[in-house]
Amino acid sequence: MKPLFLVLDGVDGCGKSTQAKRLVARFEREFGARPLHVREPGTTLVGERLRAIVLDRELELSARTEALLFCAARSQMLDEVVAPALARGTSVVCERFHAATFAYQAVAGGLDEDRVLQLLTQWAGAPRPDLEVILDLDPALAAARRSELGDRIEAKGLEFQRRVALGMRRYAERSERARVVDATGDERAVEDRIFAEVLRAARG
Amino acid sequence: MKPLFLVLDGVDGCGKSTQAKRLVARFEREFGARPLHVREPGTTLVGERLRAIVLDRELELSARTEALLFCAARSQMLDEVVAPALARGTSVVCERFHAATFAYQAVAGGLDEDRVLQLLTQWAGAPRPDLEVILDLDPALAAARRSELGDRIEAKGLEFQRRVALGMRRYAERSERARVVDATGDERAVEDRIFAEVLRAARG
Repeated sequence: MKPLFLVLDGVDGCGKSTQAKRLVARFEREFGARPLHVREPGTTLVGERLRAIVLDRELELSARTEALLFCAARSQMLDEVVAPALARGTSVVCERFHAATFAYQAVAGGLDEDRVLQLLTQWAGAPRPDLEVILDLDPALAAARRSELGDRIEAKGLEFQRRVALGMRRYAERSERARVVDATGDERAVEDRIFAEVLRAARG
Repeated sequence: MKPLFLVLDGVDGCGKSTQAKRLVARFEREFGARPLHVREPGTTLVGERLRAIVLDRELELSARTEALLFCAARSQMLDEVVAPALARGTSVVCERFHAATFAYQAVAGGLDEDRVLQLLTQWAGAPRPDLEVILDLDPALAAARRSELGDRIEAKGLEFQRRVALGMRRYAERSERARVVDATGDERAVEDRIFAEVLRAARG
């Protein structure tokens, strides 16, 4: 089987991290090879430094600056971590990718949607994910799952998260590799839904 | 007189910082109003954090990541500092701008020149400088002026700086606001040459 590049995305609190861990374990059980688990922004040295900046509640960042920083962290992670992993035959499970930048900075943040997609395609366009799972959950339910304080972006409130959720669905309409997956119900049920999409992606 | 947005650029060691200080003082003497002096990357809180990242000798950054980070710092500085200064009638003297990203990351760093110009225009395109001075100095002479150790980018060596110098000249051919100024000779002579260009820009 060729290695897969799998993305999990969705509003804050939709269960990405939990499901990413479950997907790594399930993938290993079913296919006998453990995928690399990465997150965005982060994973690389520079990515972790950028993560600290974008989540810092003391900083004021425009949506434009945010989009560029997320794109920079992604570009570095693709070159430094994802491409080498795929080249040596290791699949990758990544938390957050283009859908997040599109939803948070374009749809919720007010940037031009086409311009953001063009930025991502031109500057963080390869390798491309084989599957982008959009975990779909009512932002009010998702908010209840999150920690009380939250980081700079989570602190923007429920109305912002509703626009993010709308942005995630709109991204899914524009990306042929994206699949919206119902994130309600127990963790095992969500895991099964995600894995069904992975099997479909694996068959190409 | 309408406030001016003035940029000084050139290879490392060409005398940008010295000349920026002289330009600020000269501008104040001649026009009776002190311009704001900013530098790139930096000036904003996030810009200074990004400056620490791009100059860190311990980090490996691709030219692509560098271009995105410089563009992010610039976008934030334009919104947060330059646009408000110009709006209240204060001129701005800025060390480094688009010419640097074009020369270091595209021409010397190997990125596609048109794509880099498009990034800068789309994501850090306003306000536009009234004048971009490219201080032209043989990189071997410039290297002799610099401190011995240098930062991550200065450490790339003379051959890299020669490509940067070529990139600066090539940028000047593509930007209608750019002027190449001879940076040889004593500081006062260079100051005079720069100020002659400022007077020309002020006349529009």
